[in-house]
Amino acid sequence: MKLYDYWRSSAAYRVRIALNLKGLAYEHISVHLVKNGGQQHSEGYKDINPQSFVPSLETGEGDIIPQSLAILEYLEETTPTPALLPTGALARARVRSLADMIACDVHPVNNLRILQYLVTELKVEDEAKMQWYRHWIYKGFDALETRLSNDKATGTFCHGDTPSLADICLIPQVYNAHRFNCTMSAYPNITRINNTCLELNAFKKAIPENQPDAV
Amino acid sequence: MKLYDYWRSSAAYRVRIALNLKGLAYEHISVHLVKNGGQQHSEGYKDINPQSFVPSLETGEGDIIPQSLAILEYLEETTPTPALLPTGALARARVRSLADMIACDVHPVNNLRILQYLVTELKVEDEAKMQWYRHWIYKGFDALETRLSNDKATGTFCHGDTPSLADICLIPQVYNAHRFNCTMSAYPNITRINNTCLELNAFKKAIPENQPDAV
Repeated sequence: MKLYDYWRSSAAYRVRIALNLKGLAYEHISVHLVKNGGQQHSEGYKDINPQSFVPSLETGEGDIIPQSLAILEYLEETTPTPALLPTGALARARVRSLADMIACDVHPVNNLRILQYLVTELKVEDEAKMQWYRHWIYKGFDALETRLSNDKATGTFCHGDTPSLADICLIPQVYNAHRFNCTMSAYPNITRINNTCLELNAFKKAIPENQPDAV
Repeated sequence: MKLYDYWRSSAAYRVRIALNLKGLAYEHISVHLVKNGGQQHSEGYKDINPQSFVPSLETGEGDIIPQSLAILEYLEETTPTPALLPTGALARARVRSLADMIACDVHPVNNLRILQYLVTELKVEDEAKMQWYRHWIYKGFDALETRLSNDKATGTFCHGDTPSLADICLIPQVYNAHRFNCTMSAYPNITRINNTCLELNAFKKAIPENQPDAV
């Protein structure tokens, strides 16, 4: 498999964690999101991913899958062990809904193209842009922390005692929160789970700074 | 089952379509997103949904599931017929990735709280807000139309000849595009699929104007 990847993309970071947890080897292909105006906008890459987003997964048969959540579900269906979703429809819904709180309601609002639009089209100053960024992380983490702390299904990880899609989406978002100096004191469960995950090799290997295209 | 719902919420609209396609009866509970500053912010509703979002699904056993994509997957797992995902991991990935292009990259960037933040915090004028709204729809539809037109897996619907999660996410977004006067001439496949879906009773019944809380 090939992963069209960028070290600082948190959507790509999710897929790297999942590939590592499943023990799947992959070829890293860097799509540099910043250099020369962004390699994701090249015609070659737009043929692979019409949204000009990373990640894209190329399967062993040469098929392309875009969208990190769809890739995660694909990996879960094609390599079921170790499972990244629990058994039971209600538990699976809990994990997916925790993952979606990050993947739908935090990350897309803060990604590169949105920040670029704020600056270039709406002439937003740097400090207001940073406030925007932190605001949506806090909104998401407030709700996530409430859900984690109110539910006995929370364990060592977001759900029970094995990593799931929820942790896979959460940890890259915590990385972003640290990068943009968010205050994490209101989030003891999120912080605890982040620390637990980062002790695992699958998560460590996926950290942005450990990628070949990190600068 | 009970659906915490709002007529104009396109995330709730998705779930209404899925419930109708599966032939599942549900009790509609209106959470008015605008009246009195928004019923979603009430303490009572925040206990149900800490994000203050609709939809939330209450199962027959009284469990609450937030997040529309997680609800859709739950309905698919608990009521598999008619299927809203095809067979085969690659085809399922295609459908999910089409759905995620809308549910992750268009809708969350344009939802009510974001538009409110643009106006109240960033002092964005009404016309610039409308441009923001249309910009992200066009970005999403450009990429979606490319994928639909380039892939023989596209059929009467987004994938083959039965409705799937991709159509369920697409049709509410087309409703929003019409509401905010987007030009649709560049999107023949999206327009065709929208027209096909809206001939089906499951989609018709779910239209915002057909809900009990529509004004």
